[in-house]
Amino acid sequence: MKKKLNVGIIGYGFMGRAHSNAFRQVNHFFDLEHELVLKVASARNAERLEAFREKAGWEEAETDWRKMIERDDIDIIDIAAPNDWHRDMAIAAAEAGKMIWCEKPLARNGEEGREMVKAVEKAGVRNMVWYNYRRVPAVTLAKMIVDSGRLGKIYHYRANFLQDWTISEDLPQGGEGLWRLDVNAAGSGVTGDLLAHCIDTAIWLNGNITRVTARTETFVKERHHNLTGQVEPVGIDDASMFLCDFANGSLGLFEATRYARGHKALYTLEINGANASIRWDLHDLHRLEYFDHGDESALRGWRSIHITDAGGDHPYMDHWWVPGLQIGYEHSFTHQVADFLSDLETGATTQPDFADALITQDVCDAVISSGQSGHWVEV
Amino acid sequence: MKKKLNVGIIGYGFMGRAHSNAFRQVNHFFDLEHELVLKVASARNAERLEAFREKAGWEEAETDWRKMIERDDIDIIDIAAPNDWHRDMAIAAAEAGKMIWCEKPLARNGEEGREMVKAVEKAGVRNMVWYNYRRVPAVTLAKMIVDSGRLGKIYHYRANFLQDWTISEDLPQGGEGLWRLDVNAAGSGVTGDLLAHCIDTAIWLNGNITRVTARTETFVKERHHNLTGQVEPVGIDDASMFLCDFANGSLGLFEATRYARGHKALYTLEINGANASIRWDLHDLHRLEYFDHGDESALRGWRSIHITDAGGDHPYMDHWWVPGLQIGYEHSFTHQVADFLSDLETGATTQPDFADALITQDVCDAVISSGQSGHWVEV
Amino acid sequence: MKKKLNVGIIGYGFMGRAHSNAFRQVNHFFDLEHELVLKVASARNAERLEAFREKAGWEEAETDWRKMIERDDIDIIDIAAPNDWHRDMAIAAAEAGKMIWCEKPLARNGEEGREMVKAVEKAGVRNMVWYNYRRVPAVTLAKMIVDSGRLGKIYHYRANFLQDWTISEDLPQGGEGLWRLDVNAAGSGVTGDLLAHCIDTAIWLNGNITRVTARTETFVKERHHNLTGQVEPVGIDDASMFLCDFANGSLGLFEATRYARGHKALYTLEINGANASIRWDLHDLHRLEYFDHGDESALRGWRSIHITDAGGDHPYMDHWWVPGLQIGYEHSFTHQVADFLSDLETGATTQPDFADALITQDVCDAVISSGQSGHWVEV
Amino acid sequence: MKKKLNVGIIGYGFMGRAHSNAFRQVNHFFDLEHELVLKVASARNAERLEAFREKAGWEEAETDWRKMIERDDIDIIDIAAPNDWHRDMAIAAAEAGKMIWCEKPLARNGEEGREMVKAVEKAGVRNMVWYNYRRVPAVTLAKMIVDSGRLGKIYHYRANFLQDWTISEDLPQGGEGLWRLDVNAAGSGVTGDLLAHCIDTAIWLNGNITRVTARTETFVKERHHNLTGQVEPVGIDDASMFLCDFANGSLGLFEATRYARGHKALYTLEINGANASIRWDLHDLHRLEYFDHGDESALRGWRSIHITDAGGDHPYMDHWWVPGLQIGYEHSFTHQVADFLSDLETGATTQPDFADALITQDVCDAVISSGQSGHWVEV
Repeated sequence: MKKKLNVGIIGYGFMGRAHSNAFRQVNHFFDLEHELVLKVASARNAERLEAFREKAGWEEAETDWRKMIERDDIDIIDIAAPNDWHRDMAIAAAEAGKMIWCEKPLARNGEEGREMVKAVEKAGVRNMVWYNYRRVPAVTLAKMIVDSGRLGKIYHYRANFLQDWTISEDLPQGGEGLWRLDVNAAGSGVTGDLLAHCIDTAIWLNGNITRVTARTETFVKERHHNLTGQVEPVGIDDASMFLCDFANGSLGLFEATRYARGHKALYTLEINGANASIRWDLHDLHRLEYFDHGDESALRGWRSIHITDAGGDHPYMDHWWVPGLQIGYEHSFTHQVADFLSDLETGATTQPDFADALITQDVCDAVISSGQSGHWVEV
Repeated sequence: MKKKLNVGIIGYGFMGRAHSNAFRQVNHFFDLEHELVLKVASARNAERLEAFREKAGWEEAETDWRKMIERDDIDIIDIAAPNDWHRDMAIAAAEAGKMIWCEKPLARNGEEGREMVKAVEKAGVRNMVWYNYRRVPAVTLAKMIVDSGRLGKIYHYRANFLQDWTISEDLPQGGEGLWRLDVNAAGSGVTGDLLAHCIDTAIWLNGNITRVTARTETFVKERHHNLTGQVEPVGIDDASMFLCDFANGSLGLFEATRYARGHKALYTLEINGANASIRWDLHDLHRLEYFDHGDESALRGWRSIHITDAGGDHPYMDHWWVPGLQIGYEHSFTHQVADFLSDLETGATTQPDFADALITQDVCDAVISSGQSGHWVEV
Repeated sequence: MKKKLNVGIIGYGFMGRAHSNAFRQVNHFFDLEHELVLKVASARNAERLEAFREKAGWEEAETDWRKMIERDDIDIIDIAAPNDWHRDMAIAAAEAGKMIWCEKPLARNGEEGREMVKAVEKAGVRNMVWYNYRRVPAVTLAKMIVDSGRLGKIYHYRANFLQDWTISEDLPQGGEGLWRLDVNAAGSGVTGDLLAHCIDTAIWLNGNITRVTARTETFVKERHHNLTGQVEPVGIDDASMFLCDFANGSLGLFEATRYARGHKALYTLEINGANASIRWDLHDLHRLEYFDHGDESALRGWRSIHITDAGGDHPYMDHWWVPGLQIGYEHSFTHQVADFLSDLETGATTQPDFADALITQDVCDAVISSGQSGHWVEV
Repeated sequence: MKKKLNVGIIGYGFMGRAHSNAFRQVNHFFDLEHELVLKVASARNAERLEAFREKAGWEEAETDWRKMIERDDIDIIDIAAPNDWHRDMAIAAAEAGKMIWCEKPLARNGEEGREMVKAVEKAGVRNMVWYNYRRVPAVTLAKMIVDSGRLGKIYHYRANFLQDWTISEDLPQGGEGLWRLDVNAAGSGVTGDLLAHCIDTAIWLNGNITRVTARTETFVKERHHNLTGQVEPVGIDDASMFLCDFANGSLGLFEATRYARGHKALYTLEINGANASIRWDLHDLHRLEYFDHGDESALRGWRSIHITDAGGDHPYMDHWWVPGLQIGYEHSFTHQVADFLSDLETGATTQPDFADALITQDVCDAVISSGQSGHWVEV
């Protein structure tokens, strides 16, 4: 008989839906001691909350998230609310002794993030941040390749995250579905929303970033604000790019934008080592490209590895279908929660936790700061 | 309040798992009048059945499928058993007045299939066959393009389904997980297993096939048989390829094999019309390639369309995530069951039904027959 | 001091231009004992011949090809005239004791080809046919891989050659630039023009073809004929596809058409062996795709080899630029003539010669015959 | 009768070979009033010069380049010598009233470049710099698309040039074939060698760059020097990356390195406009990718345009073969010299000339300067 763990979620947006799916699915594909129960869903808008509760499969609805956190029968709090709520919710959950899963970025800035880390450390509660792309099987395999030492000395790391959905000047900012364009809610623009993913993966694969020089830009200076009903200055960065140094001596180059026409969610990364290189692209997320200089000279080429081997050596894939058949983006969350539950059995720490995410937050803050000052900024 | 529909499934293999997932997920992503209940799972091996029941989320287990069919509280029978069971199960379910979903191919041959069609017609029960690839969003979009008339007169249709998992001579045939290699269980080899998918899609997109000339081959002539414990002749076709004519005057070329080293499940299709062409590939199932001769001359090229637009015009995708983010292979089943439930509301027929699948079965039979005779065979 | 070899060419069309380029260039990139002299160009239309002579760099023009062949100072006759002239020109050149280079296909049919083979054998003159694609570096590397035995037992060979330039019904047949559509001049349609390339490469890479079953089609039944000024029945095959057996037990599947909208000259080939597979595509002619099942399981993938390593192991490429920089289609001819001149030094036979090309011609004839009879035809 | 133009070349390296090929070929493919004569080749090493002269097809050899420049029968001086010779040779040629073609980069730095510009302006001689990639047909088409205004407001420009040939620490610097690693001969490392190409194309396509912030790195600090016979500090930049602003308000991101394992000469560029985007890649130089947001929503995708339409609208391609057949890298030079000769007829200026190349040189200098200072540098 599995041990039940009751989850309480806050937020019913895109991430609320993606998390819920992972919670519903994980026990159907992974053998674990614990079973997740979708116990309570929380949000302020009662009507939308009820629609979400029913469709996503939560047992109860609660419009006051603080009440939900106070419930004794809730084991885990999952924060899927906008960034400006992360700190207060996490601190309350920590004080209530709950395990905490928090959507990325950790917070709007390092200051908030540091309070959150302090809170979970003080409370001694398990915590995790949803940098889900680490658990795309191809990215996990990239990590395994890096850890194997095959790449040799690393010279270059580059990543970008290109979208095109905010090009129209008619798009408003703020409120339901558009809080990512409101600096008060989001903390930053593409830096926290998109680059944060790139940075998290980069640190995981290539170690710490020591300094950055950045260029940030807001292409559309004013947008109608859904909360005030007025045209308001846009406070977020529409585009953000930076050069950096890694602690291992390699050079980094990062870029994110929502103004790259033709790209929907093109998160790509590449690592060049003395002996081998790796490339990955979210648009074709089941393919990992790998170049091994050790291959026989005439036959060297980038290998397009289709990361779908069930019963083979491709991470996570033995839990799914048969070779050649892909799984969706959404299962990066399923894998993360499976790892958390597995770690719970062994006592291991699940990465990235709040402390890991704070490091990424600090790089984000350095990027924003450098974008303002025009100087190199130490992290 | 949704109307509940109780499902009884037979079979816990790869397809049993895939169907179960669709049944669990469909109401979480589609707004429908009916709600599926995973009521009873049936199979002969009680121990394995129980493990499947628990993991896949079925309420009850029943080792006698006939008993399950007889239950009054079961509305739908889902057949996910090996091919040699399809006929008897479908006829029993029809006689019991159940709606029937049957895994493809319809049967081991047209003779069995014809009995099944007769049974469901006599009983007047809704029926459907799991040619799931029609509901991969990119393939559905292909159908929409074809139906729009953009392609103009069609000249060519080509498809193949290439795998490489049976190359080793040490692989046994028959029994759990390997019944597809046993001609008694499967009816045929790659013709019924793989080409049947290609043929179903082809008929859907390009109309009927009128005649075929085929070459079938069994590369490994003898394999250990798991059921007899002896080395036995291999009765299935390891590879099958054929040329054909379509009723619309276009030429067809099809191939399937399990001996194409390097390909896991490479189902590709291409249609060439006078004005435009389409290509698709299961290994990158979210991309549809489209060439439009009407594009300005200097700028003509194959468009690689990433079929992930939520809130846009890409079929099914508004039920999932955000642009750029893929869904998995498994949701082709989710879409099919969603369509069935939606058709149930309107009274429309859900395709492909048994009668549709019988046409595909007849083409498969003609292929096997031509492979034996060396002559063109009319369908 | 290099030994000079005087060449006389017949024909100034596309192939006349391509051959001339190779003759002009070969000594600038390859170190050879012999130096080619572009001595005489021959064709019937004096005005166009003169324009060609000047632009392509030939010393003299001669409207009577028989006179050119009779000249003592001509060492090599290069036949770049339409197919219906190959036999007479080759026999005359052989009788005059000239070395002969002949554009493919060898002739309009095997009967003509056999006379040509007999003539060169009787005369004992060196001879060669321009199946140039063997000398695309990527294809030559494919041959090296095959010869190394890496592929293991071969199961499948497939090739196609897809074009789209004759879809319009308004395109006339016959005469300058369009003789390929006139069955009297060409002998056949895509079978001799396109499939012949696929067949030549296939036999080179995978050995003899023993029997075929084919489907040929003429989509546009009548076209204006430029020579008669009348609308005339079209005698060529617009599309041709066939299944075949190779002597080594592998299965073959071939297709060519000029009605595949979106494809300009998509010659692709693929070989699947038990241990490894190869793919190539003329549209990206510097890339060879290679899959090696011997690669470590998790890291197996199709390698996209960019065949541009100068100073490395990529065939022919050390004669050109630096790694990463491509050469053009036209240098497949340059390589072939370089090989011929190199073989002349050593006495080796340059392949494919007339006898090799006759084998390909016989397969083409079998395809046409099977397309008419609907039966398997032995080669 | 064509007017003859006698060319004198200085240098027999990679670029000497590539230029010679263009000079030999241009009149065979383009109809021009002038005919180039490969008159004199010059270099200091008499033995190697003679081998080059014979193989590349030059009439005469001259070990003293100043003597060659002084000859009355030379019309054009082509400088294909290392960067440290450009200034003196160009000034001498200008003073002698010759037309001048100079290999890129213009010089080792802006100071030298400015002297060269002054010299040609004073002398009033035609001049041109070999930024050959502008004349790859796909890149020329990109320019045509940009000029058509289809892209709309430009937001982003990114380019990189990735190689991997200097990773080994055993590679020496300096002297024959390796002067690019010697800062005295080259002026800079990848900035002048590789980024200069990216910058030239960028300015051509997207206008001037106003400021940059850069990170340059020398990974291998010491190498054996072929000229001194000693291990010497490496003065060049092994890697160089920078962020920039364009005058049109778009953001730029550039990177070049010789330490990107797996890439031979991966020059890629991408432009994102409000309405459309373009991508190109030197490794597949005949393909241009184009995304047009104006395409019907469901059918939008990156078009892979195979820029090989003869008799169509693809720049330069009507001079070559037939659709689908590629030409080589080397014909970017052929096209440039064809344009020069065509401009000579009309009196138009051929771009890029020395003045254009000086702008690129100034950006390179700014990059090096910013790499040293860590500050944004105005151009």
